[in-house]
Amino acid sequence: MKTYKKRDLAVDKVRRFLEPGPIVLVSSKYKDEINIMTMGWHMVMEFSPSLIGCFIWNQNYSHDLIRKSKECVINIPTADMLNTVIGIGNCDGDEVDKFSEFKLTPIKGNKVKAPLIKECYANIECKLVDSSLINKYSLFIFKVVKAHAATKPKYPQTVHYRGDGVFMISGRNVDKRRLFKPGRL
Amino acid sequence: MKTYKKRDLAVDKVRRFLEPGPIVLVSSKYKDEINIMTMGWHMVMEFSPSLIGCFIWNQNYSHDLIRKSKECVINIPTADMLNTVIGIGNCDGDEVDKFSEFKLTPIKGNKVKAPLIKECYANIECKLVDSSLINKYSLFIFKVVKAHAATKPKYPQTVHYRGDGVFMISGRNVDKRRLFKPGRL
Repeated sequence: MKTYKKRDLAVDKVRRFLEPGPIVLVSSKYKDEINIMTMGWHMVMEFSPSLIGCFIWNQNYSHDLIRKSKECVINIPTADMLNTVIGIGNCDGDEVDKFSEFKLTPIKGNKVKAPLIKECYANIECKLVDSSLINKYSLFIFKVVKAHAATKPKYPQTVHYRGDGVFMISGRNVDKRRLFKPGRL
Repeated sequence: MKTYKKRDLAVDKVRRFLEPGPIVLVSSKYKDEINIMTMGWHMVMEFSPSLIGCFIWNQNYSHDLIRKSKECVINIPTADMLNTVIGIGNCDGDEVDKFSEFKLTPIKGNKVKAPLIKECYANIECKLVDSSLINKYSLFIFKVVKAHAATKPKYPQTVHYRGDGVFMISGRNVDKRRLFKPGRL
């Protein structure tokens, strides 16, 4: 797999990678338990503080790890990792050590104990700031506390899930800045 | 602009078009006021009932229309409409009649009074089912009550926002169904 040279990314810039809607890998740690899950249901909810809403079903092994540790890392995988992304979503954390099984490299975070996935394009360290919607909607609201992203390419080629086993691979980028009013970017 | 021949889409299938994370156009109507807004922050929250979470800022003219009417239509525009999508996001509903200004055709919905946008690939009629998070997070939770989608092409070429005026255009689709366990699709 590729590895990327990364640098710090301002927390209010994570939108650049999340708003287009990619499938992400969520890594978590509680005590000695570590897991990775594949996640497609998430949304940006605010720039500053940098908030992200995530649907994490209570049948996922990661649900309890994140709920108890109150933190996670949202990792952005690229299209070359697609089979790994699918593999992670098709086995269970209570049966499989996913870092080992999928030959991924855990990296120590700055602000959270959950490991970053080295092979991903970007790593977004998150703290749970609102747990009040977990029971009703499986909705976790996280605040981004630290972010790291590759410097090249400028934008990752991400994978986006359509259901029924079909993925969309992100295509070309188009700069339309000239059509925006200054405050509307 | 293109027009599409559409048919009914089962409400639990809207994920196919929303989960990849496209920019959508939200149309609304309250009494005699009608508006369209461009929206990038949304997420699938459940299949059945078919729930969608949407961030609609209280500075948007549509915010009050949707809050009061308790309904909207989420329309999926395609890449050929990109300049229109940007135009809609760069003017205000209290100053501009957006259907007229952008030469879009309002179509009567089945279950809501808000108009569908004919030129879009899909139209998702929604009812507001949880308003308790609007004040704190500008988060509207909608239930899909009726959906319509084009029959060709199978998947639309959508636009995805990266911030700073840059859009990603959706790329090719890859069928990886063979790598999934039956219950995990």
